[in-house]
Amino acid sequence: MKKKRVAILGSTGSIGLNTLDVIRRYPDRFEVTLLTARNNVTVLREQIKEFSPRKVALSGDKISQLRGCGLPSSRFFDVENDLSGLVSGKDVDVVVIAMTGAAALKPFLSAVKAGKAVAPANKEALVMAGDIIMAAARKSGARIIPVDSEQSAIFQCLEGQRRCDLAKVHLTASGGPLWNIPSARYDNLTVADVLRHPRWSMGAKITVDSATLMNKGLEVIEAQRLFGLTTEQVHVVIHPQAIIHSMVEYGDGSIMAQLGVTDMRIPIQYALTYPERLSTAMKGLDLVGLGALTFLKPDMKRFPALALAYHVSREGGTVPAVLNAADEVAVEAFLLKKIKFLSIVRIVEKVVKAHEKVGMPSLEDIQRADVWARAKALALIKG
Amino acid sequence: MKKKRVAILGSTGSIGLNTLDVIRRYPDRFEVTLLTARNNVTVLREQIKEFSPRKVALSGDKISQLRGCGLPSSRFFDVENDLSGLVSGKDVDVVVIAMTGAAALKPFLSAVKAGKAVAPANKEALVMAGDIIMAAARKSGARIIPVDSEQSAIFQCLEGQRRCDLAKVHLTASGGPLWNIPSARYDNLTVADVLRHPRWSMGAKITVDSATLMNKGLEVIEAQRLFGLTTEQVHVVIHPQAIIHSMVEYGDGSIMAQLGVTDMRIPIQYALTYPERLSTAMKGLDLVGLGALTFLKPDMKRFPALALAYHVSREGGTVPAVLNAADEVAVEAFLLKKIKFLSIVRIVEKVVKAHEKVGMPSLEDIQRADVWARAKALALIKG
Repeated sequence: MKKKRVAILGSTGSIGLNTLDVIRRYPDRFEVTLLTARNNVTVLREQIKEFSPRKVALSGDKISQLRGCGLPSSRFFDVENDLSGLVSGKDVDVVVIAMTGAAALKPFLSAVKAGKAVAPANKEALVMAGDIIMAAARKSGARIIPVDSEQSAIFQCLEGQRRCDLAKVHLTASGGPLWNIPSARYDNLTVADVLRHPRWSMGAKITVDSATLMNKGLEVIEAQRLFGLTTEQVHVVIHPQAIIHSMVEYGDGSIMAQLGVTDMRIPIQYALTYPERLSTAMKGLDLVGLGALTFLKPDMKRFPALALAYHVSREGGTVPAVLNAADEVAVEAFLLKKIKFLSIVRIVEKVVKAHEKVGMPSLEDIQRADVWARAKALALIKG
Repeated sequence: MKKKRVAILGSTGSIGLNTLDVIRRYPDRFEVTLLTARNNVTVLREQIKEFSPRKVALSGDKISQLRGCGLPSSRFFDVENDLSGLVSGKDVDVVVIAMTGAAALKPFLSAVKAGKAVAPANKEALVMAGDIIMAAARKSGARIIPVDSEQSAIFQCLEGQRRCDLAKVHLTASGGPLWNIPSARYDNLTVADVLRHPRWSMGAKITVDSATLMNKGLEVIEAQRLFGLTTEQVHVVIHPQAIIHSMVEYGDGSIMAQLGVTDMRIPIQYALTYPERLSTAMKGLDLVGLGALTFLKPDMKRFPALALAYHVSREGGTVPAVLNAADEVAVEAFLLKKIKFLSIVRIVEKVVKAHEKVGMPSLEDIQRADVWARAKALALIKG
């Protein structure tokens, strides 16, 4: 069997590490051909030694630190400028987009245009330019198999079904770290409070987004784009146990759900091996030991980010890119203790309101909106 | 669109009525070509008037009572002798096996051999002769889409998946009407106590089988045959809310589940319209209003029927037919107040133990075992 050649954008982050863990179990199935990181030289050096990728990309000013790790310097590339070319290369079959943020958009689109299988864990690119990406995928025949556990669940629940029979999607949300904390306390929450997520161990940005429910809001927009749904077809339901990763309801009233232990290696492996499912050798879900599975209505007043995301999803055009950019800047400011917790969504909302939407935007329009929103958010934070 | 021509064996029972309810909603999709019943002339006459089937079968001694219902007597057939020929007819596309008991075996097999789509709600035929039926279906290309909510759920959870990736099936059981009643009281339960099922409104036989969990035991055997599983791959989990109708676990640890309101019209319609899903115009599942979904381990000591069924499933050969026949006789005796509740399974167990198994049985071997088991059970009841 020919090995699948895997490019991992953002190999030193949480998703990247889990992806390499999956690959480690199946050395006869996969070959790592590209690893990329921004700054984490220490981890990247270890990964290079273990997986001997053909190419590596890192921040330009850090590349010199890779010397002596066994790869000739002709194999080192600049992560800021070279990703689009690298993912389109002949030595890549699957591109795992494990990097966070808007920077993933260009390489994502390049991989799709080159007809690669793309496994995105990054939601920003799809939020910003989902319509452009999906149109490019239809044109090139590129397969997009999401890695995010909720989107992967939806993807799995759609397998073998006719898309036209879909009625709606139930996107589950654990509720995030603040679900059981009274909202009166929200404005005094420290960064440490917010980063204590009860279910998933993730990067800081996404954990803060889980606390505001902006993460779920972005997923609403992402699911809408990925699966060609209307905003109204995407329902959010709070499911604190995070066992059911999402559900698809069909016109006959039947609901298909995907369940499992909360381990990212399952959806990552599924994306890499689809349509096969290989053993993960993980302990299966203990249904009896689970306790009760419960479902609650999301509180849009306590979590205004969710209502804002629905509004933005309906608006479309450049507005989702603005939401995404403003949120990146505002969360960064919170993590740097420049603004309080409740200000994150307030600032994002102000930026969204101030934006003059471009409908049917080009990639340039989207990038312009992104730059504008970042500047606007920064100005509001300073002001 | 050409109408699907539907034969309903057992049209006056619970599944039959629900099937006609589905067909009533889609008169442009379906045509009823055959209705059959044993004794319920009153309901059958109404059905004939409403659906104008081409043919009708009833107990020989009741046929004269169908006079004047609008069909010429040349369209009336004997339900005991004529079913196999009728279901194989050119005017039948789909056969819904809504009749209960072992009597369904012959027409089921005839329909399968004739290459019809078969929608079985009857589990006895598959328990008795599942291997023979499935082998015949592979030969003729007949499609078997189960109607039983649990088997339908498994069928749906397997759609679009590779069978070789299946690890196990989680067959859910509501626990039946006795789940919350202390076992010390079981032997004094009246027929009325047992027929009070908390979740499903069904016929008397199946409700008693739900109380003993023999129904679930028969489903273990049925699922094993229908989906080509080992006995060990079929797990029973008590799920009192009966919202998740069953689950399939794959080798990667991912579980697919099918959920819905407890209304038989959903799986019936699915079987009739597969691979399409049409609207049922039913109120969807209110996830938030559900309360908690819970899962419990079945208590094999309190419900020995389940342990017995696992034993029988592993044994195979003629033993499942013996289990099924003895249970039919014992449940009938309980309903006629000839034996107490706990004696049902005791008698079945004695019959199973007394049986000399025939491995790789022919249909004749199975029918001989069926007759033997009925006689043996009757003798034990009288003795």
